[in-house]
Amino acid sequence: MPRGTGPDFIEALARGLDVIRAFGPGRPVMTLADLAAVTGLARPTVRRILLTLIELGYARADGPGYALTPRVLDLGVAYVDSSGLWDVARPHMERLVARTNESCSVAQLDGSDIVYVARVAVPKIVSLVVHIGTRFPAVATSLGKVLLAALPAGEAERVLAEPTRSGLTPRRQLDAAERDEVLREVRARGWAATDEQLAAGIRSVAAPLRDGDGRVVAAINVNAHAAETSMDVLLEHHLPLLLATAGDIGADFARLAAVPRVTVAS
Amino acid sequence: MPRGTGPDFIEALARGLDVIRAFGPGRPVMTLADLAAVTGLARPTVRRILLTLIELGYARADGPGYALTPRVLDLGVAYVDSSGLWDVARPHMERLVARTNESCSVAQLDGSDIVYVARVAVPKIVSLVVHIGTRFPAVATSLGKVLLAALPAGEAERVLAEPTRSGLTPRRQLDAAERDEVLREVRARGWAATDEQLAAGIRSVAAPLRDGDGRVVAAINVNAHAAETSMDVLLEHHLPLLLATAGDIGADFARLAAVPRVTVAS
Repeated sequence: MPRGTGPDFIEALARGLDVIRAFGPGRPVMTLADLAAVTGLARPTVRRILLTLIELGYARADGPGYALTPRVLDLGVAYVDSSGLWDVARPHMERLVARTNESCSVAQLDGSDIVYVARVAVPKIVSLVVHIGTRFPAVATSLGKVLLAALPAGEAERVLAEPTRSGLTPRRQLDAAERDEVLREVRARGWAATDEQLAAGIRSVAAPLRDGDGRVVAAINVNAHAAETSMDVLLEHHLPLLLATAGDIGADFARLAAVPRVTVAS
Repeated sequence: MPRGTGPDFIEALARGLDVIRAFGPGRPVMTLADLAAVTGLARPTVRRILLTLIELGYARADGPGYALTPRVLDLGVAYVDSSGLWDVARPHMERLVARTNESCSVAQLDGSDIVYVARVAVPKIVSLVVHIGTRFPAVATSLGKVLLAALPAGEAERVLAEPTRSGLTPRRQLDAAERDEVLREVRARGWAATDEQLAAGIRSVAAPLRDGDGRVVAAINVNAHAAETSMDVLLEHHLPLLLATAGDIGADFARLAAVPRVTVAS
């Protein structure tokens, strides 16, 4: 992908972030050669980036290779903390989980993917393996349908043209006409559902979270295991509670935007 | 803090990471002037960094200011995913939570702080507000005592000299002699406890997670609300389950290190 054509683009920053992202699933320790291969950068460049990351506390030498340190989490946390959404949503999500005995998540859109930004899970043997930062193709999820439906005309088409960064392919692909029909329905109803579209055995309902100006800032869902929870229970019992919860979070979020916030630890 | 004295240090990367971290609690949208004030960088420098982050999809313009996008989570997630610890620990943590009805967390050390890398929470009205990436001063937590106790001689002293990045101060400070005694006891027993030391109403027990070479790679705890769970229940019922769980995770982690890993979504 060509990038960095403008005179203001800082190549050294882009390359440094590429090296951080090169550490992925199953790659906790990487050598200079590994990192050069994954990023396409020259080894002396990778070496200088690693020495800089080590001096800043984001990486460390590990035997013949290099590993990231937990300080890297500060970068992602800057996003979650700054939005304030998690602190606002969490008590409401916990009440919803207690009343439905199902897991609840909040996600936002990044390109054609949803990214999980908050989650309250019920411990179960079978459940969707997600954590903060997990990505799924938006079209295959109830959260994604709600977020895509909220985009201005033409914008959904544009973001869906971006390739997914999740590494996953939905079980069933929708063509453009089917997708438009689904999004029109979501807009009209105000919520979305999926029934085993992303993964066998998982079904969910989702609703938008809005700020004081009515803009959709995120989506919230309840997801259930198909063998335990019927679509009827999901739509007739869980959905009304989800819609009420989404409204409560939106109201708190709008209030929060008006006052300075203090975070306490307990 | 002086930094970047070596010829290999890449100042542009350090500054870019500083700008990402400048977005913190209560600061979702920042202007050029805000960011220049927080980071101490010149406005033209901040502007070029933001244009680069926008082109890479990590930031976006928001009215008169700038905000991060969920893509920033990819940077932190690279750490959590690459360690593999979360995928291994999660089912064991879920079973422990189901048997104790208390929340369970895994943390690692960064300087004098612990950083949470995994958590399975029980929905309760009163619980410790933590999420992945949350920091606490290590000495005030059961997780931190386990991690400090595992450091080589002299190393605990060195990391504890670093100021906390958590913004918190423990309710009660230990002097060096008290601390050494606590760590000696933790080493001998193999676990640590805290009783309302960090926060009123919160008590916890923690144990080390070891890899196949016996090295402590993280710590795991059960934390409880003091009004609901006595120290007796914590130590006599929950602690044995915690120790067994820590052993199971270590065994799985050692096995995992020997084989390539594939992550699936459901």
